[in-house]
Amino acid sequence: MVILSNMKTVLILGGFGFIGSNIIKYIQNNSNDFEIIVFDKHSRHSHGVRFEGIKKVYVGNFSDTIAVKRIFQENKIDLVIHSISSTVPAKSDDIQFDILTNLIPTVKLLDIIKEFNVKDIVYISSGGAIYGPSDNKHLETDEAFPISSYGVVKLAIEKYLFLFSSQYNLRPLILRPSNIYGLYHYSLDQGIINIALRDAIVGKIFCIWGDGEGEKDYLHVDDFCHILFNLLSKGIHNTVINIGSGDLLSVNEIVRAIKKIIPSFKWRYQKAVLSDVRHVSLDSSRLISYIGEYEFKPFVEGLNEIYNWQKSLK
Amino acid sequence: MVILSNMKTVLILGGFGFIGSNIIKYIQNNSNDFEIIVFDKHSRHSHGVRFEGIKKVYVGNFSDTIAVKRIFQENKIDLVIHSISSTVPAKSDDIQFDILTNLIPTVKLLDIIKEFNVKDIVYISSGGAIYGPSDNKHLETDEAFPISSYGVVKLAIEKYLFLFSSQYNLRPLILRPSNIYGLYHYSLDQGIINIALRDAIVGKIFCIWGDGEGEKDYLHVDDFCHILFNLLSKGIHNTVINIGSGDLLSVNEIVRAIKKIIPSFKWRYQKAVLSDVRHVSLDSSRLISYIGEYEFKPFVEGLNEIYNWQKSLK
Repeated sequence: MVILSNMKTVLILGGFGFIGSNIIKYIQNNSNDFEIIVFDKHSRHSHGVRFEGIKKVYVGNFSDTIAVKRIFQENKIDLVIHSISSTVPAKSDDIQFDILTNLIPTVKLLDIIKEFNVKDIVYISSGGAIYGPSDNKHLETDEAFPISSYGVVKLAIEKYLFLFSSQYNLRPLILRPSNIYGLYHYSLDQGIINIALRDAIVGKIFCIWGDGEGEKDYLHVDDFCHILFNLLSKGIHNTVINIGSGDLLSVNEIVRAIKKIIPSFKWRYQKAVLSDVRHVSLDSSRLISYIGEYEFKPFVEGLNEIYNWQKSLK
Repeated sequence: MVILSNMKTVLILGGFGFIGSNIIKYIQNNSNDFEIIVFDKHSRHSHGVRFEGIKKVYVGNFSDTIAVKRIFQENKIDLVIHSISSTVPAKSDDIQFDILTNLIPTVKLLDIIKEFNVKDIVYISSGGAIYGPSDNKHLETDEAFPISSYGVVKLAIEKYLFLFSSQYNLRPLILRPSNIYGLYHYSLDQGIINIALRDAIVGKIFCIWGDGEGEKDYLHVDDFCHILFNLLSKGIHNTVINIGSGDLLSVNEIVRAIKKIIPSFKWRYQKAVLSDVRHVSLDSSRLISYIGEYEFKPFVEGLNEIYNWQKSLK
């Protein structure tokens, strides 16, 4: 007899996006505790990645309240993982669009969650876009000065999550990952490692914004997923947590690392965009206090893994 | 011959509201440096307060971008003072309304300001609603956990002001006053001192939310205006500043003070609202570093002043 009492239903918003896809893969490979429901604008992974064992897929626009509400009417959801964003930092110049398609649908989601008495939500915020320009290591308690609307909206969403926590006992777990890279990242707008590798493989010249000297923290998505479920298993909530590997790399170092794999790789420099934070370094002491010391995947190992995956797509 | 070279045109958004009215009175009584343009939903002060010497009044809804833009097309604005809010903390439960009528019109205003190359804007934020529940004195650098949408939206607006500062050299001066009281406060939803005095004068029983023991900082609007123009005259910008008198009073102390003036005054207690911050105490060291030590109007003096004014309205 199979006992299912510990089985939880997790709703992954944006389940076929980069982070969502990796979360699904992680659950399938590492956990028997979750039944997965996906809400996404696509009915399947747009690049044909196949996932086994997804219980249901709901297709819709995140702004469509009726579509979002239907999921809760038809299923008992135990946990929501919110990994939808309609914008990326460099493409959030249209602030109104950013607010209307990210902030408003999220507060409507919170109203629905409250109505259906769901208590647990994981929100994928941003360690790269929230803090703003500073050469110091950022603590979660630092005053945030985002230089993109993307960052302001993520911060506002964090604050609404805490507001619902104070008023309705919502239990938000808010994660501020640094620059996540890894498999299943197809974006043309975000994720320098994947974009550069793709350009290198097809022989296109890669464009670097600015001088490429600013250093940022890079985090492998496998580490991110592992840490996310570790925090969930420990019942951590009502907190915002930086997740960075501590591995600071400049874009110049990244392109040189790619050139070692693909010697024909070329790049050029173009004017920096205003919304790009030059330096991202996260203080991880809060994370360590929750999960203890953690061994992150070395960058070169992650890079080769993505290279092999990207080659296999050709 | 009158030399007008130092004359600046100030646009007061919400000029016929409580704070806006007092800013106008302050300019008229204390400064020859400003020509005043008012934008308000009303064509004149709704309670008949008369202002001399306003150059122009524009009537419109803050959400009406065309109406707001027309002011900048027809006038060279040097300074914008933004004192519009469509909500108060206790009435910001409809988060979507709050975002659509405060946050979105403000980011549209910032786009207009950028288009017309206006550099100086004063934003009246909130020292009472932004920080959230804590018994400590709040520093501007403290992590904010607003318990009302009103507070979250004000915080998001602050962040957008800094974003425009970093990208387009906007020079925002952001003020976080504590609980402002004073003349021309007609709201039925906000401003406990005026509401309680009105109830006392007409013999109505005043309702206290909660036990009335939480202490908050109260600030006379004359002090607020004086400090605002002092900061402006010193060219302070790109900063957020707490403004509190340091005078902490519980609602019970306030009603007892009113009872000394009007012995027939009665009150009762009702359930606290979730969005009400119980304790508000602001650290003013940043303010003092800009303007030096400042003598605030004593509460009892301010209270008697409002009492005499309110009586005169009958």
